[in-house]
Amino acid sequence: MNRMRSHWAWGYEDKFPSDDTRRAMARRFAAAFGQAPDILPLPSLEAAKIPEPRFAPTPELRAMGTTDQHERAIHTYGRGYPDVVRGFYGDFAAAPDWVFYPTSEEKIVLLYRFCEKESIALVPFGGGTSVVGGVECAAHGRFRGVACVDLSRMAKVLEVDETSRAALIQAGATGPEIAKQLDRYGFALRHYPQSFEFSTLGGWIATRAGGHYATVYTHIDDFVESVKMVTPAGVFETRPVPASGAGPSPERFVLGSEGAFGIITEAWIRVQPKPRWRASASVHFDIFERGVEVARLLAQSGLYPVNCRLLDAGEAMLHQVDDQGRVVLLLGFESADHPVQWPMARALAIATDLGGCCIDEPKYTSDGDTAAIEHSAASASAWKQAFFDAPYLGSALVSMGIMCDTFETACTWDRFRAMHEAIVKSVSDVLHKELGGGFVTCRFTHVYPDGPAPYYTFVARAKPGTELEAWAAVKAAASDAIITHGGTTTHHHAVGRVHRATWEKERPPLFEKVLLTAKHELDPIGILNPGCLLAESR
Amino acid sequence: MNRMRSHWAWGYEDKFPSDDTRRAMARRFAAAFGQAPDILPLPSLEAAKIPEPRFAPTPELRAMGTTDQHERAIHTYGRGYPDVVRGFYGDFAAAPDWVFYPTSEEKIVLLYRFCEKESIALVPFGGGTSVVGGVECAAHGRFRGVACVDLSRMAKVLEVDETSRAALIQAGATGPEIAKQLDRYGFALRHYPQSFEFSTLGGWIATRAGGHYATVYTHIDDFVESVKMVTPAGVFETRPVPASGAGPSPERFVLGSEGAFGIITEAWIRVQPKPRWRASASVHFDIFERGVEVARLLAQSGLYPVNCRLLDAGEAMLHQVDDQGRVVLLLGFESADHPVQWPMARALAIATDLGGCCIDEPKYTSDGDTAAIEHSAASASAWKQAFFDAPYLGSALVSMGIMCDTFETACTWDRFRAMHEAIVKSVSDVLHKELGGGFVTCRFTHVYPDGPAPYYTFVARAKPGTELEAWAAVKAAASDAIITHGGTTTHHHAVGRVHRATWEKERPPLFEKVLLTAKHELDPIGILNPGCLLAESR
Repeated sequence: MNRMRSHWAWGYEDKFPSDDTRRAMARRFAAAFGQAPDILPLPSLEAAKIPEPRFAPTPELRAMGTTDQHERAIHTYGRGYPDVVRGFYGDFAAAPDWVFYPTSEEKIVLLYRFCEKESIALVPFGGGTSVVGGVECAAHGRFRGVACVDLSRMAKVLEVDETSRAALIQAGATGPEIAKQLDRYGFALRHYPQSFEFSTLGGWIATRAGGHYATVYTHIDDFVESVKMVTPAGVFETRPVPASGAGPSPERFVLGSEGAFGIITEAWIRVQPKPRWRASASVHFDIFERGVEVARLLAQSGLYPVNCRLLDAGEAMLHQVDDQGRVVLLLGFESADHPVQWPMARALAIATDLGGCCIDEPKYTSDGDTAAIEHSAASASAWKQAFFDAPYLGSALVSMGIMCDTFETACTWDRFRAMHEAIVKSVSDVLHKELGGGFVTCRFTHVYPDGPAPYYTFVARAKPGTELEAWAAVKAAASDAIITHGGTTTHHHAVGRVHRATWEKERPPLFEKVLLTAKHELDPIGILNPGCLLAESR
Repeated sequence: MNRMRSHWAWGYEDKFPSDDTRRAMARRFAAAFGQAPDILPLPSLEAAKIPEPRFAPTPELRAMGTTDQHERAIHTYGRGYPDVVRGFYGDFAAAPDWVFYPTSEEKIVLLYRFCEKESIALVPFGGGTSVVGGVECAAHGRFRGVACVDLSRMAKVLEVDETSRAALIQAGATGPEIAKQLDRYGFALRHYPQSFEFSTLGGWIATRAGGHYATVYTHIDDFVESVKMVTPAGVFETRPVPASGAGPSPERFVLGSEGAFGIITEAWIRVQPKPRWRASASVHFDIFERGVEVARLLAQSGLYPVNCRLLDAGEAMLHQVDDQGRVVLLLGFESADHPVQWPMARALAIATDLGGCCIDEPKYTSDGDTAAIEHSAASASAWKQAFFDAPYLGSALVSMGIMCDTFETACTWDRFRAMHEAIVKSVSDVLHKELGGGFVTCRFTHVYPDGPAPYYTFVARAKPGTELEAWAAVKAAASDAIITHGGTTTHHHAVGRVHRATWEKERPPLFEKVLLTAKHELDPIGILNPGCLLAESR
């Protein structure tokens, strides 16, 4: 039973917020915006403008492809704000002509040969949850059309090495598909990006996704033991070893390649036993700076909290974690080997020494301790629910004329304050100038000994017809502030097409040359995801 | 006051083992070999065969260079067994014609232009401690000569960011030079490869050196926040951020580049406060397999021991940690934030549950606790001393006609047993066939959730005149066993020239193509370290 994915909005159609929910959201936002936003009618697929396919594949390819309108619509964009806005307005001008579902590496190679011969751009597609234009490809210039390669039929856990705690997993497997298959072995990947429900292992690797762990194992990079990528020039397969010092890392060359070099088909991934002990606590601060200082000390403590999520007052309010205007630090520890009272106690001592206030007792749970699990920290649960629902709400907001999007970065601790102030100021200024108001909130998603990964959400009333321009102005202001103040283009949202110009200011120019020559070596005709990560070749 | 480095052996001349020490060593080995090895006379620089320089640099370069025989001799080789053997016999045929000591990036560029124009191979030189032929370059083919670039005059800590715990350090700084300069700020790098006394930050980055921490932060890779590399095509400089998800990592492209792409001149490095609490213990096992199992559980425990060094019986005996034929696991925890009794107690519980025996009480020390520090675990200290002295002893053994060398790898836990047995068998077989006897020992230097990094030492009586061939036969047997059984070419000794053929069996062929095109982009004339890491271009 296939649940239907929305052709324009985040996720499953049946999970899209009801009219009642939208009305409740409108009431919440009425206070912030002076008046309640409208509840607009939802768009239909029938009204969507989807161009006719521009090419006809060979019979062999046709057998694994489709031109179904709904399929083409859901494969047109990622799910960033401009994607959802265009979908909402029925603009699917960039729809791929065909969507293909290969079931083997051989079939991917068939696609390569066809696209090379026929000048078709080929876009690898995992969950389609990119917020940086990673899967959107308007065919122009030398391309006659666009083919989308959806990896969803290569979604198996092929092998599990229980001794080494590693699993060979096909790249098209989504978060829940991986969870279900690993569960039989008592393992979990414990990589939970916000897109978990739909995004895939291959997509995570291609975009260097950020996950569950706030410290140490922050990116999917840290779980990749080896990777296999099928390129137009052949197979690029690395050896599954726990670590190596032999030359530059071949895995790290594939990680972050965003479909420009090849299609990732499978990987040996380090997996985790399920945690048996958990601890969670929330600490409140009166001022954000104090919370920042505590997050820094925790990141530098060697305690390795699994959760160290600092929410500024706006973020805590927005996600209904706190309604009293306080800064909140959500702390968590987990282990499959030992109880975690001790590190939590030490972490709370660090936090309270600097003025943090622990309203409730920290919650400790262990396997089989049902009462404790049911009683688990209320604010942490509220956070979790809000976290996975946020993208659904984001799409619902679009249908209420509200602009809501996020961006993120990482910078060293010494630079954070100036960068943060510049971001908040310049984004607020643009929101006021373009849209007459709005707000921006901040949380830390991951923390490192040398700096935080701050994550920003901005919300404003959109002006119908100017959404894309206003959003572009906000993004430009945010990216400028980030780059000027020493942040990185992205901590885990990837480069895609949206961040390409920003990334060009960050990366060494010689590294761009290296990547372009690598691209030419692996994808000599230049069919793969043109314009994503790297400038389109002529 | 410059202490003199031996022109042929490891380290400082004044630290070379005395005749008395060599006699004591001979007595120890007499038992193993049936007869005491000879104490051969040490070679003199005067007797060394060093060819005349083949080119004359420009006056500007001449001012920063030398043709001094001693300097040329110490810059000829690394310090692997075949290097020391050739030095012992006075064979310096591969000596660089000139050794240059640039003091700035501009001077490095001058060298590039000269070498490109005059067809001179250019070899970057840090501490000269390579054991894989990383700094040895016989000029042949299109090259008229060889210039060595010694980075030792670029050795300053330029900036310290105490908030983010990061320091900008010039690449020529050695371990002790970095320690001394960081000490003023209360920081340490806590990266202690065996070559610590001489090797440099740039060398560590170029070769992905392994260090102090047995878990999590095992390689220098984990401490590199950003890196600056001067290439013949220009400067390649990355942005100092705690983490990024923007495209493939540019730092990881430089890490492991072994001087083939450019010369690393400086890097922002994550530094550590000095530990205030330490714990150490040694656990004994009757059989190696049991120790392996415990090491695996500890690596998978999330306790993150800083030391988790498993020594087989031979290794424990060789390093005088145990003289009763037992397997020894040396365990350590340290922290600048909190006492470490708790993780040590849990680690010991894991070890003793599986039959480990803790002879002494674990030792806990904390700042100012002088008595406890003085009383610190005897076997751990014995280990430390032996660790840093081992390379001196290795050179002394050469002067006694004994072959002693090491090699290392990493593999997944499920593959370890078969690989280990194959390595021990094939190396022993070769030692017996070529030299009539000898032994091989094993320890784990680093452990990962998915596998160990085993490190092997082999010792045998050499036959004068056949040392290089016999050594090559042992290395070939070891490398074959490693590659056949799923290990990596090297965990932290790098590829250099010695491991190039082995690495070619491990790396994806397409990755080699990528690296070769990258090399051509960054070093278009191909002057940099030809034959190291990558095959020499024509």
